[in-house]
Amino acid sequence: MPGKASKPSIKNEFAAFKTNRIVEVASHLFYERGYSSCTLDHVAERLGVTKPFLYSYFKNKEAILAAICEVGISESLSVLERTLAGEHADHRALLAEVVRQVGRIVIDRQEYVVVYQREMKHLSAKDHERILRLRHSFDHQIAELIREGVEAGEFREDTDSFVAVWIGGLISWIPTWYSPQGQKSAADVIDQLVDAAMRLAGAE
Amino acid sequence: MPGKASKPSIKNEFAAFKTNRIVEVASHLFYERGYSSCTLDHVAERLGVTKPFLYSYFKNKEAILAAICEVGISESLSVLERTLAGEHADHRALLAEVVRQVGRIVIDRQEYVVVYQREMKHLSAKDHERILRLRHSFDHQIAELIREGVEAGEFREDTDSFVAVWIGGLISWIPTWYSPQGQKSAADVIDQLVDAAMRLAGAE
Repeated sequence: MPGKASKPSIKNEFAAFKTNRIVEVASHLFYERGYSSCTLDHVAERLGVTKPFLYSYFKNKEAILAAICEVGISESLSVLERTLAGEHADHRALLAEVVRQVGRIVIDRQEYVVVYQREMKHLSAKDHERILRLRHSFDHQIAELIREGVEAGEFREDTDSFVAVWIGGLISWIPTWYSPQGQKSAADVIDQLVDAAMRLAGAE
Repeated sequence: MPGKASKPSIKNEFAAFKTNRIVEVASHLFYERGYSSCTLDHVAERLGVTKPFLYSYFKNKEAILAAICEVGISESLSVLERTLAGEHADHRALLAEVVRQVGRIVIDRQEYVVVYQREMKHLSAKDHERILRLRHSFDHQIAELIREGVEAGEFREDTDSFVAVWIGGLISWIPTWYSPQGQKSAADVIDQLVDAAMRLAGAE
């Protein structure tokens, strides 16, 4: 998430809070009405602020879209890297834990992820490329984890590490069909996701 | 695909051909520029026809969007029903064949499927509901196939038939990342998809 914060201070905390609020409100508006149909006036009105206030945090509407699109993958990468750095019994436990936590993120960040999927073509080439690099880094690290798990004999030996992309697909698909008002609870969906990812990886 | 054709005749064939061309060209435009940014004037111009010509086939822009959104799921349902009606060695072979053919459809119809995923919120409630019913029918029939396969001892007994929705997710996700110019050929992607679906279903 872009922000002007560098070292912790009350002022920086306020700035980060305001940036987050702008992103949150804009994400909800873009989710409801579509990016093309929303103006910065709508965003300012919903926040009860002026347009110049928005411009002091984001240079234009596209910059807000980029911040929204980055939330899901940034948080997923943080969780992945934190989990990889921690202690785990084996690669199976590691994969299950990462998938569980990232599943939680895409459910919590459902609107952000859907806005990304629907509106990514409105990103500047630079932002699009940057977010794609984050996604590739995620896929690459999951592929590496699977490759190591296959070598360790924990995953079926005929498992292609490209299955990381299919696991990413399972996760990314959740926000398009999951509904908090639906029959399945978030916990059920996440349990099923973990089971599905383990099957794809060939964890016997 | 909506059309005015009921019984085969040269006239009805022409009508179906024109309807298909409108849907094809509009799908490409919506894919490139986004539905909200496109007008019927753009569609007419790209086709080299007048706007009244479009109105003789579709009542408005939303009706064209509905036709685009219906292509992928309609063709998938046809293939599913035709495959289920045919001869197969067992449920495993049946599932593999359906997934293979539907994978081919979403790759061939990539732009239509992406337009559906991005723009579905612009569908009328009636069209949205109708397309959702088609999707549910697809998922339901795959779930039934898996349930029967579990009973027949072909799929792992701890396989929840809801896995049909996850398999649908794998398939639906392909158009967002597959590129005909990418490293993987369509045939490779489809082979991997079939392998992934068999793993999810617990086909040992």
